Order: sequence, then C-alpha cells, then structure tokens
Amino acid sequence: MNNTENESRDLECLRHTLAHLLAAAVVKIFPDAKPTIGPAIENGFYYDFAFQKPISSDDLPTIEHEMRLLLSTWEHASCRELSANEAKKIYSSNEFKQELIDDIEARGEPVTLYTWGNFEDLCRGGHVKSAKKIDPQGFALTHLAGAYWRGSEKNPMLTRIYGAAFETGKQLKEYIQRMEEAKKYDHRRIGQEQSLFFIDETVGKGLVLWLPNGTVIRDEIERMAVKMETDRGYHRVVTPHLAKKELFETSGHLPYYQESMYPPMEMDDGTYYLKGMNCPHHHIIYRHQQHSYRELPVRLAEYGTVYRNELSGTLAGLLRVRSLAMNDAHIYCRKDQIKAEFKDVLNLILEYFRIFGFHDYWFRLSRWSSKHTEKYINEPENWKFSEEVIRDVLSELGVDYVERENEAAFYGPKVDIQFTSVIGREETMSTIQLDFAAKSRFGLTYRDHDGLQNNDVFVIHRAPLSTHERFIAFLIEHYAGKWPLWLSPIQAILLPVGESHLSPSISLARTLRSRGIRAHTDESNETVGKKIRKAESQKIPYMLVIGDREADLTYLSVRKRGSRETSSSSIEDFIAMVNDKIMMRSADL
Amino acid sequence: MNNTENESRDLECLRHTLAHLLAAAVVKIFPDAKPTIGPAIENGFYYDFAFQKPISSDDLPTIEHEMRLLLSTWEHASCRELSANEAKKIYSSNEFKQELIDDIEARGEPVTLYTWGNFEDLCRGGHVKSAKKIDPQGFALTHLAGAYWRGSEKNPMLTRIYGAAFETGKQLKEYIQRMEEAKKYDHRRIGQEQSLFFIDETVGKGLVLWLPNGTVIRDEIERMAVKMETDRGYHRVVTPHLAKKELFETSGHLPYYQESMYPPMEMDDGTYYLKGMNCPHHHIIYRHQQHSYRELPVRLAEYGTVYRNELSGTLAGLLRVRSLAMNDAHIYCRKDQIKAEFKDVLNLILEYFRIFGFHDYWFRLSRWSSKHTEKYINEPENWKFSEEVIRDVLSELGVDYVERENEAAFYGPKVDIQFTSVIGREETMSTIQLDFAAKSRFGLTYRDHDGLQNNDVFVIHRAPLSTHERFIAFLIEHYAGKWPLWLSPIQAILLPVGESHLSPSISLARTLRSRGIRAHTDESNETVGKKIRKAESQKIPYMLVIGDREADLTYLSVRKRGSRETSSSSIEDFIAMVNDKIMMRSADL
Repeated sequence: MNNTENESRDLECLRHTLAHLLAAAVVKIFPDAKPTIGPAIENGFYYDFAFQKPISSDDLPTIEHEMRLLLSTWEHASCRELSANEAKKIYSSNEFKQELIDDIEARGEPVTLYTWGNFEDLCRGGHVKSAKKIDPQGFALTHLAGAYWRGSEKNPMLTRIYGAAFETGKQLKEYIQRMEEAKKYDHRRIGQEQSLFFIDETVGKGLVLWLPNGTVIRDEIERMAVKMETDRGYHRVVTPHLAKKELFETSGHLPYYQESMYPPMEMDDGTYYLKGMNCPHHHIIYRHQQHSYRELPVRLAEYGTVYRNELSGTLAGLLRVRSLAMNDAHIYCRKDQIKAEFKDVLNLILEYFRIFGFHDYWFRLSRWSSKHTEKYINEPENWKFSEEVIRDVLSELGVDYVERENEAAFYGPKVDIQFTSVIGREETMSTIQLDFAAKSRFGLTYRDHDGLQNNDVFVIHRAPLSTHERFIAFLIEHYAGKWPLWLSPIQAILLPVGESHLSPSISLARTLRSRGIRAHTDESNETVGKKIRKAESQKIPYMLVIGDREADLTYLSVRKRGSRETSSSSIEDFIAMVNDKIMMRSADL
Repeated sequence: MNNTENESRDLECLRHTLAHLLAAAVVKIFPDAKPTIGPAIENGFYYDFAFQKPISSDDLPTIEHEMRLLLSTWEHASCRELSANEAKKIYSSNEFKQELIDDIEARGEPVTLYTWGNFEDLCRGGHVKSAKKIDPQGFALTHLAGAYWRGSEKNPMLTRIYGAAFETGKQLKEYIQRMEEAKKYDHRRIGQEQSLFFIDETVGKGLVLWLPNGTVIRDEIERMAVKMETDRGYHRVVTPHLAKKELFETSGHLPYYQESMYPPMEMDDGTYYLKGMNCPHHHIIYRHQQHSYRELPVRLAEYGTVYRNELSGTLAGLLRVRSLAMNDAHIYCRKDQIKAEFKDVLNLILEYFRIFGFHDYWFRLSRWSSKHTEKYINEPENWKFSEEVIRDVLSELGVDYVERENEAAFYGPKVDIQFTSVIGREETMSTIQLDFAAKSRFGLTYRDHDGLQNNDVFVIHRAPLSTHERFIAFLIEHYAGKWPLWLSPIQAILLPVGESHLSPSISLARTLRSRGIRAHTDESNETVGKKIRKAESQKIPYMLVIGDREADLTYLSVRKRGSRETSSSSIEDFIAMVNDKIMMRSADL
C-alpha cells in the first residue's frame, strides 16, 4: 500500500466513524428513529433512518450541533462479538438491523458491535483510531433524500442524511466552494431561469415537459442533425412508441431487459410494451422491403423516443428520466462497407463536436476477448475483422483512443466517446456499435450479385448526440446558459426606452422575426437600465435599445451579450450579420 | 311514406331475405356452423356465423352458388310464434340464438321464427313478399371479416360474411364497378405502391410504421404547419406521451373516456396512462408560469401523439389506428380576444386548404341548447356571447355554414369543417372548439391590469390538419397518388440510357440534392422506355433522361409527369424552376 492509498483508507475510516456519530446524534434527538445502515462515500458519508415523523432539512443544523457535542465526549471505539440471537435481542424493535443480522449469520460471518461513547452500532469495523483525530470543523451535513430500504421499491422508504467530510475544515470549505461553483452550471437551475423545461408531479416523475424556449433548442439541434444526416444519405423514418411482446422477444429485450421496461399493457390482440430501444422497429422496416446489394448501405434515422422504467427515487432533472428522445440511426451494410460507414459516422460525430465547440473528449474501443467466447456471439472471424477495421479507422482519423478488452457488447465491438463535464462528471456522450447478431435474429438479408439472398448484413447502431434530455443538460453546463446565437431561444431583444418607443419596437421585432431572427420586445414598465440587466441575466445575445434616435428604425444601437459597449448598425446590416452567424452556427457574436 | 322511402324499404326487405338465404346456404354446406344474426346494411347484407373450422374467401363462390340453387326452390315465407322455452329447445346447440331468445323474452316481445324453403330462422320479420322478386344476378358475396359476438372483445370471435345486393343485376354491376374505381384511390394500395407506410403484425395492429417516402410527406406537412404557425405567434412545446392517472382525473378523461384509453401501467410511484389528448399537458404548461394580461393570447402548439384503444378488429389502414400524431394547438385568451383568435384560426385553416387545393368543404357550427342546460356547462352568458362571436366570424369570412342546435361539446361551441372524400366518405377534417371548462378544472388564470388574478381564461382547441394518419390517407385519395411537387418523396428521377450514363446521372443527382431537390437515379439495368414507364407509375414529377447528349450535364431533357413530351433546359434553369415551385408549394409542375 502506498501513501496515497493509506491516506484514502484513513479518510474512509474517518467518514465511517462520522456515520456512527450521525446515528448517535439522531437517536439522541429522535429516540424513536431506527438506524439502518450508514457507509462512507465519496466526499463524505450517509446514514439511512426510519423516522416515526418525517424530518426536514431544517433539522440538520440541530443534528450537526449534537454531533459536535457528542464528538467531544468520544475517545476510542470498543468492539464485542456476540451470537446472532443475542444481537437480535438488542435490536428487538428494529426490523432492519434484524434483517442485517440474519444476512450476516447466513454468510457465516461474525456478528460484531462497535461502541463509541454511549452509542453501540452493528458494524464490521473500519474506524479512526481515536476520535481526537476528527476535526470538528471538517464535516457538515449537506442534505436529505428518500431512499428505499436496500434500494428496492418494494421496501419501505427511509430517510437518508448526507454529510460531507474531510480531514480539515479548510478542505471541507474548499469542497463546499467547489459545489457552490458547480451550482452555477447546474442544468436544473439554468433550465428554470431560462424557462427551458420542467417536470410536474401531476404529469409524472422523469417525464420532461419542454417549454417554448427549450423546444427551440431541441428543434434547432434536430434540424441540424436531420440536415447533416440527409446530406449523408440517411433516410428518416417514424415508428410507433410501442410494440407487441413478440417483437421484443425476437430482439432479445424480453426477458433480459424487462426490468427496465415499462409494465406491459394487455390489449384485445395481445400484450404491448413501450419501447426501450428503436432498433427492433428499424429492423422491421429494413426487412419490410427487398434490398439489392447495390442499394446498401441503407441508413434509417429517427429522433425516436424510448422509455426506461427507472425507480422514481433515482430520477434527477434531465440526467435520469423515464422518457428519452434519441438521435438514433441504424446503418445496414455489407461486410466490405463496414470501414467506410464507420469512418463516415465518426467524421460526422467530429463535425457535430466542432459545431458545439467540444474539445475534451476521448475514444474508447471496447473489444471482445478470445478467452471469454461464452460471452460473445461466436463469429471469431467477424470479431477479428471488425476490430481491425475500427482500429484502422481510429488511426486514420488520428484521434486519441484507448482499448478495453472483454468489454464489447455480446453482438459486436463498440466505440464510446467519453466526456468530462464542466462539473467533473464523466459520461459517455456518443456510442457507435457494430452488430453481428441482428441479421440472424431478424432475418436481415440482401440480394447479391448472383441474385441469391445473402444474410451477411451488418448493422451499425449510432447515437452521436445522445438523447435530447442528456445532451441538452450537457450543453446547458457546457455553455453555462450562454447559448450560441443559433441555439438561443431569443436571439435579439428590443428594449424600448419609453412608452413612445414601444410601438416601433414591436414593429421592428415583427420585421426581424419575418427575416428569420427570433426577436422579442420587453414590454415591461421598467427603466432601460433594468431591462438591460434583465436581458444580461437571461443571456440574450443581442440587445437593441430603442430610444428617440432609433425610433425611426434606420439605425440600431446594438449591444452584445457580455459587452458594455454599444455599436451602431443599419437594420439591413444587422439582419445580414445575424443571419450569417446563424447560418454558420458561429460560436462568436 | 313517399315513393323513395317505399323503394328503400323494399330494398331493405330484399337484403334481409338474402341474409336468410346466406344462412340457409351456409348451414347446408357446413352443418356444424352456428348462425347468429344477419341484418340488411347499406348496399347489401351480412350474416355472422360461428364455424367449427375457419373458412376462407375461397369458400364464398361455393356458398354463393348454393344460395342461387336454394333461391330457385324458395317461394314465400311462413311465420310462427312460439314460447321462449320452445324456441330455446330448437336452438339447444346454439348458445348465441339462446341468448337472443332470452333477450327477446326479457323485453316482453313475441318470439317468432320465419321459414323460407326448408330453412327456419329466429326473426322479427321484414322480408320480400315473394322470393321470385329476387334477381339471382342481383346479389354477390363480397368478403369475409372477423367480428366479435355483439361487438364486444370479451365475446367469441365470429366470421362475418358480407354480400352486396340490389334489385337488378345491372345495379349490382354498377356498384361493383364503382367499388373497383374507388380502389384506384385506396390509400392502402397507393401507400404500398409508393412505399409510404405499412403496418406489421409483430409491431402491432393500428400502429403505423412510416417508411422514408411517407416520412418525407409527414415532415413536409409539419414543416409547413410549424412555419405558418410560428409566423402567427404560436410557440412549439414538447410533452411526454403519458401521464399519471391524477392528470386525467383532473381533465375529466377518467373515468368518462377510460374505455378508449390504453390500459394503465403501475409504476413505483403511481398509475400511468398513455395520453388520449394533448390538452391536459398543455394546460399544465400554461399553468406552470405566471401570465400577465398583456402576454395573452398564449398559443401552444405541438405535433403531439395520442393513443386510442380501438378494438383490433376495427382497425383499418390509416383511417382507424391506435396511435395518432395530431397537429394540435391550444390558445389561451381573454374573453375580448376570442373573436380575433377564432378568426385567425379559421383564416389559417382556409390558407392550408388553399395550399392543398381543397374546394369541397363546408362549415358546421354546433351550438348548445338553452332547453337542455343539464348537458352543458352553466355559463349562459358565455354561450350566448361566444356563439354570436363565432357566427360573426363565419359571416365575415363569407363561408358557407350550417348551424346545429344542441350539438356543442359540454364545455363550449365548436366549428367542424366537413369534407366528402373522392370515394364518397364524409368526414370531419378540422375542428375548432371553444372551452369554458378548462379554466376551473385546471385553475388557469392571468394577472389583470389591476394586478389581481383573473380566471376568465378561454381555451381554443384546434386541429386544422387532423392527424397525420387521417390527413395523409385523405391526401393520397385526393391526389390519387399524384403528389404536388413539394410533397413528392422523389421530385426528380434520373434515367441513364446506358451503362456509360450511370456515373453522370449519379453525379447530377448529388448536385440536385445539394441544391434542395429530392433527386434519385434509377440504377436498374432496364431499357430507358421501361424506366420511364416505371417512373410514370410511381408518379414522379420530373424525369430526366441522361443519354449521350445530356452526359456532359449542360442541358437536360426534362419530361413532366403525365406529359409525353420532353423539353430542354439548362441545369441552372431547371434547379431554379423546381426550387421556385417547391417554395411556392405550387400545384402545377
């Protein structure tokens, strides 16, 4: 074990002990509360309790204060081992601990209790040597959340109290500052400020309602993707959001994927499911018509909506939802076309990233393993061939990539493109998968030179822009809400100085809209200074102040987002300049 | 009773007797078959049977032949009345007839049996006086269909045999010719020929898969509608396809509409339904934000998908489906804005109709009735006011309309726009409804001049272009598959004369596509004559024959759909001409 590992082990012990301290404080204040489990986690710890009456975040300061009081009385932990029966007697009124004790017994492990101060807790150990090593300013309770007992929605809902903890108060302070900073980028906060989207409990958790501003962004992204894909020979299709059980049996989603699918619906002609993937529907479309070798590749694309039955407690903003719209496509090609198609897909993705100004990403090639053939479809030649092809493509494009053995999908190798978001969250943004399995599952064929059916159809699954939900969350953070012009819900705002300037402002806004610019007039009764500050806070690219000088609408006073200066421009020059930047999807104003 | 009514009564008797004749022939050939019921219908008759073994349409000629043999032996019908018990003995092995007898008895009606030839059947009467009045060439069996006993999917599925019947063989022949003619326009046939859409049993009945060609048409219609609505101040939103039970309770869809909704899905946080309407979601969006009187009207628009749980046996092509995409919008306005908004909506609809070349339509204003106030929301002043407003608008626009009293929705008056399709089917294409009920159900308000909440928010529901499914079915028939240029999936096809002309054709197609024209090359090995005939049958607007003279791509030989002549044009002129017509959505080539 090296020094860093030692330090990290020490920190974990510290956080674990603090979880005990939290439980001790809670049962002191709420003697009815039943403690369950409380591990150390990244940056801190948590503990899950069954409370008799719900508590709120207003209770956290009291608990935190009690923790510090108790801490001053703690010195060293003592440990005793006892039989499961004895332990269960101690927890006679805590069914959660009893269940844990049963499990420990079933595993044949010793049942141990640790005592700090006057507080004894069922525990496997892993504590700080002395409570004096804990900085009383090094921890803080951060928030509450609901959590199912053992993570299953069939069990009771518990209350989870989270704490942050570091070795020193200084480290804790820095951490809290970093979190505050991250909040500035938080997609939920910006989404609300800019009226992009919301989630309504009456409609349901994890189901996003896109407001007009958010819909503009979605539509602009779709328009760009559809145009670029159409130019590259993709054909759009539209498929229903559900299908019969039989389709998902053919695809293999049932029963393997059933848990994350929505519950079935019984109709008069069979059982229906909301779709978890678009591929089965696209395969049905490919198969519907006869294809000659000359017509391949067939590229079917759709902004398709898929459904995931996530637990309601795990849903969060746009990052974890139950209904997702994907920029999906499936390419059906011959073996000799795989390389060119894969390369085209990667080039398209790089082009998308250039438009959005993404730089910090890397590629990951996930390969099969010849040592674990039981995990993969048994076509060694195709594995070898296609991995070599993908490696060639990545090299030819000169992109950075890592290889991971034994991490492919069972049906073929894949390339994932990884990002670190501005707030440090690593995520897979795009994925390209090669699929050798669909051809036999769905009977995909083409008519070859010789007129015979050839069933060597390879499918490339690709979703370069992730889902609308995840991608827009990423973009909100990436731009910190300062949308480039082409994506801005409002591109220009007209700010009349006085009552008499309202009418020319409204008329100019109409002109701008008819010329393809999303323009809006601030009709409020505020001062122009306040209007400017409001427009700045809304991060609108262009502010046009309309006063006496501008009221005849020959020259405009143009103020760009983030600039304190105003420049003068004729209306026609302004329209031409803005349209040019929109068309170029320019990053600069 | 006048003469026409007499004739129509006679024809109904004739058709009813033929239903008996059909049953007689069926039980003669299939002694195990159980006859159930068989009424006269428009243009003919049907009879439902429970067969032991399924029959196919191949059996129809045999049955029809047997009908003619039996008919020659029939003269007059005799009737006898008997007790329900006696009748049930006769039908001891036919549970369907027994159920009918129980119902007759429960209603206190007499149980009567009619005998023609040797065939006796439970019947209330209404027959031809003499079988000699039936022209043996005046009827024909047309097709088979499945039908649930008494129309409920909880009952067994029966086999329904349909026949057409008229007084004379000549009339029957004319009818059959009319039906053949209608088939030319049949949206299912054209949809298949032009690869627009299909329905796949594995995906499910009533769920349309839109092929690339059909998706082009959908997308063009959407693009037009979105542009025209955006220009008129509509804002697009996107809402999920499902919601919790509670939302549909608030809206009133549950329990009243539950039967036609999809079955519920139980999730860990409640019960979810696929939506049958977009309005509840839009109301939630309106309510999400505070609105000032100055911001109204708020116009929220969405190509939203809604779901109807139709019985699988009733589903047909695009006309009766289970998932429908609607060009929907809801306008939230003040009372003083109703007139202007209603007028704008009607003007927009007339503009759409002009673009599509519709002429044969009329308006129907459905009003409340002051005599049936129990059926309507109790706001007499609003009824009076809004009906007057709508009548004014219809008069000002100078359109033909009829009024129907006591046919409004319970929440407000509506205007339907009625069409007769080319094959004679009357349908409602567009509907505009005024809604006084949503404001109180959903608590819709705005902040008035005085800063107080005013809850007098009126909602206009409007769907001018029906659903994609129904509208495209209508358009297919309206154009008989000859799409106007802007809607044509392929706008120009390049027909290389020989092998050497393939490469310049492909290159030209690429140029045309990059200039916004959907161009495609016929790469088959057929003769150019065959290629032209194929393009004509596919109804492609422009055919460009590429031979030696055109291979340098300076001048093109352009042949328009439906014309036998070819004209010469430079590439640039052709592109400009085509783009101009596309932009104008011109009806002419």
